[in-house]
Amino acid sequence: MSELPTRLEVEDLQQNLRAVQDRLARKHEPAALRAELDPLHPADVAYILEALPLEERLLVWNLVKTEREGEILLELSEAVRESLIATMDSKELVAAAETLEADEIADLAPDLPEEVVQDVIRALPQEERVLLRAALSYAEGTVGALMDFDQITVREDVTLEAATRYLRALDELPAHTDQLFVVDREQRLKGTLPLARLIVSDLDREVGQVMVPESMKFHPEDPAEDAAQAFERYDLVSAPVADEFGRLIGRLTVNAVMDHIREKSAETQLAEAGLSKEEDVFAPVWNSFKNRWAWLAVNLVTAFIASRVIGAFEGSIERLVALAALMPIVAGIGGNSGNQTITMIVRALALGQIQSSYWTKLVAKELGLATLNGVLWGGLLGVVTYILYGSVALGGVMALAMLLTLLLASGMGVAIPYLRARLGQDPAVGSSVLITACTDSGGFFIFLGLATLFLL
Amino acid sequence: MSELPTRLEVEDLQQNLRAVQDRLARKHEPAALRAELDPLHPADVAYILEALPLEERLLVWNLVKTEREGEILLELSEAVRESLIATMDSKELVAAAETLEADEIADLAPDLPEEVVQDVIRALPQEERVLLRAALSYAEGTVGALMDFDQITVREDVTLEAATRYLRALDELPAHTDQLFVVDREQRLKGTLPLARLIVSDLDREVGQVMVPESMKFHPEDPAEDAAQAFERYDLVSAPVADEFGRLIGRLTVNAVMDHIREKSAETQLAEAGLSKEEDVFAPVWNSFKNRWAWLAVNLVTAFIASRVIGAFEGSIERLVALAALMPIVAGIGGNSGNQTITMIVRALALGQIQSSYWTKLVAKELGLATLNGVLWGGLLGVVTYILYGSVALGGVMALAMLLTLLLASGMGVAIPYLRARLGQDPAVGSSVLITACTDSGGFFIFLGLATLFLL
Repeated sequence: MSELPTRLEVEDLQQNLRAVQDRLARKHEPAALRAELDPLHPADVAYILEALPLEERLLVWNLVKTEREGEILLELSEAVRESLIATMDSKELVAAAETLEADEIADLAPDLPEEVVQDVIRALPQEERVLLRAALSYAEGTVGALMDFDQITVREDVTLEAATRYLRALDELPAHTDQLFVVDREQRLKGTLPLARLIVSDLDREVGQVMVPESMKFHPEDPAEDAAQAFERYDLVSAPVADEFGRLIGRLTVNAVMDHIREKSAETQLAEAGLSKEEDVFAPVWNSFKNRWAWLAVNLVTAFIASRVIGAFEGSIERLVALAALMPIVAGIGGNSGNQTITMIVRALALGQIQSSYWTKLVAKELGLATLNGVLWGGLLGVVTYILYGSVALGGVMALAMLLTLLLASGMGVAIPYLRARLGQDPAVGSSVLITACTDSGGFFIFLGLATLFLL
Repeated sequence: MSELPTRLEVEDLQQNLRAVQDRLARKHEPAALRAELDPLHPADVAYILEALPLEERLLVWNLVKTEREGEILLELSEAVRESLIATMDSKELVAAAETLEADEIADLAPDLPEEVVQDVIRALPQEERVLLRAALSYAEGTVGALMDFDQITVREDVTLEAATRYLRALDELPAHTDQLFVVDREQRLKGTLPLARLIVSDLDREVGQVMVPESMKFHPEDPAEDAAQAFERYDLVSAPVADEFGRLIGRLTVNAVMDHIREKSAETQLAEAGLSKEEDVFAPVWNSFKNRWAWLAVNLVTAFIASRVIGAFEGSIERLVALAALMPIVAGIGGNSGNQTITMIVRALALGQIQSSYWTKLVAKELGLATLNGVLWGGLLGVVTYILYGSVALGGVMALAMLLTLLLASGMGVAIPYLRARLGQDPAVGSSVLITACTDSGGFFIFLGLATLFLL
């Protein structure tokens, strides 16, 4: 195993990277470059691969020792992982996967060609094969997909002395072993024995007397997000995963949970900007296009609808061209205000903080806030409009349109997540597109409609 | 200490909440309500408080036992914490804070009145006071602000037997104790002794022979984000924090790091929607207004600038009113495409993945993608425009404006984070506002300018 760096700083990582780049620039030193890579932690090699353009990345990848390829692939982002897997043949992929544990192979499997997965399954010893099949059977986003099989189990009726002897025989404990899992003959979970408790307790006592009898456990079908909240809420390091009969089948560790949280947060951030997934910065143009086109297409449709709303008022704009300059302000502020409301509500919904009895309270509050904003910003814009165009009526229409658009925005900002949650959809996905579509078309309609009514 | 629930599901939390709400509805049962609250984990009481409107929240808060108030305040979001602290007098606050450890008091301190903090400092025993002063001295976002002081230290030259006896005398180990820290007489860190290694090793050996001599350590001034990446990268549970002389001053645990990650991710999400911080869903209108006005004001300014760009072309719009309907499409798609580019680049920058030598490669790629998008979507819109308005020239202007705006968007999408990183600013903050401002004004200018040149 490669060693942990003793002190991490982003600068250290960048130093490694620069050292590799220097070697690459001088070209004829594969042995020296390999010597640079070998002592690095897999995560640090992954960092270097992520930061190199495709060509250099492949040069480095070919110097990585075969037995380390699996663990490094695990540390890579999906996009970069795919770029490397695409260059490997089946034999190399099977060899890389075989160095991993069942739960790790399952993490890699979605990116591997089907026949490679089958080859790997065939090549595994019987026991591992069963675990891998189990791991592959859980959907992404469930506890089952995050769990590993490195749990150490003990029986209730052995002494701590015997348990300690058993641990010594193992030589090294799996990472994140902060507790042993106590099971009966049928593998049913009876409790957990934290190492800290094992160490401070009298060795003559039995496991059953010292264990925590009722420990928090998860089912493999539980949403990963619920488990993540539990780990955070109760500061867990590991937790048992049990099936419907209470039989221990694996464990969940804090590092798997932390990876999940990071990934989720990245996904949200990317989705909000209209990227379907993490992108390799150095991806070919075509890959990036595939990652981004869907959102642009949706946006084109909503923009086109807004454009048709304006088109319906072309007669009014022809007679009062100032409307064309003023209308984007109304729609823009409406969109921003609606996004504020919807973001807050979607977050509160995700944290389970909004009870059904309080929706009317929420609507009332958001409409109150919209009124305050409408009077304030609408009034300000009305005055500015009057100063610019010298028309009190136009200023009044501007102020009123602003107020109504903000009310629309906050109403929709509550209604959209409410309805989506009611319909069993995830309120987060695409909320921002929906609200912006409403406020754009709505804002144009309100402003141009009022202008047509009162000014022409 | 209250017990961990044995099985967490969001539904369980909501059951607790409903039980409390039922009691509240029946009003005259404070004792029963208290009985409902007492067995709950502090994080679960916090969950209930977050989900209740202000009035009900205060009713429940007043039933919480004084000695639990501190730990519950710690679990609350800042906004809700403030709403409760505002109702407590100094004596209550001091009593609540005194139940906490030094690092926890430091977490709470920014929300407490200055005189309460002083009172708490005075009331603490000498040793704790020193720790609290130290904890208070580290800026938010540093390792120092996240660390705690629950580390257990041992000397190199004692036997594992003696170390184990010492641990037994402690009765219970602090949460997240996965390793002991090995220090010399001057508290200089010599290594770490993982509990897992202590358990599996021969008790006659000395700590120095078994310990991990070079363990990863942090400085209190290190950015918390670097530590978070290290915890994730190397799957740590705890790590020592040492001063410039290598003396151990505290430790960082995975739960503090996980809280930090969650908080950061929430902040990003909120900032992108223009909320300055997490909002109490039931906050009074005025509090929400303060949280949201700044972004709306900025947006008003950028929208106003865009409006003046349009104003400069009023003559053109008057002669060809179709321009008014078409221009928001160009600006809108430009904004979306720019946001995609900037989000990807800001993320890659934060992960340290972009080396200075690769910026030109990046620009070339993004411009290539913009050209592809411009030809495709611009061509499509050009055709649609021709169908709608029957003018080949107008369709051509639309297509060309689209292409140029997308090139502008991707150029700015790379340039803005590049320049901000160069100037030592955080490229993430407000990037979305900046790019949208550029693409709005720029898109209107390009489209209306081309139309004026070629059509009129």
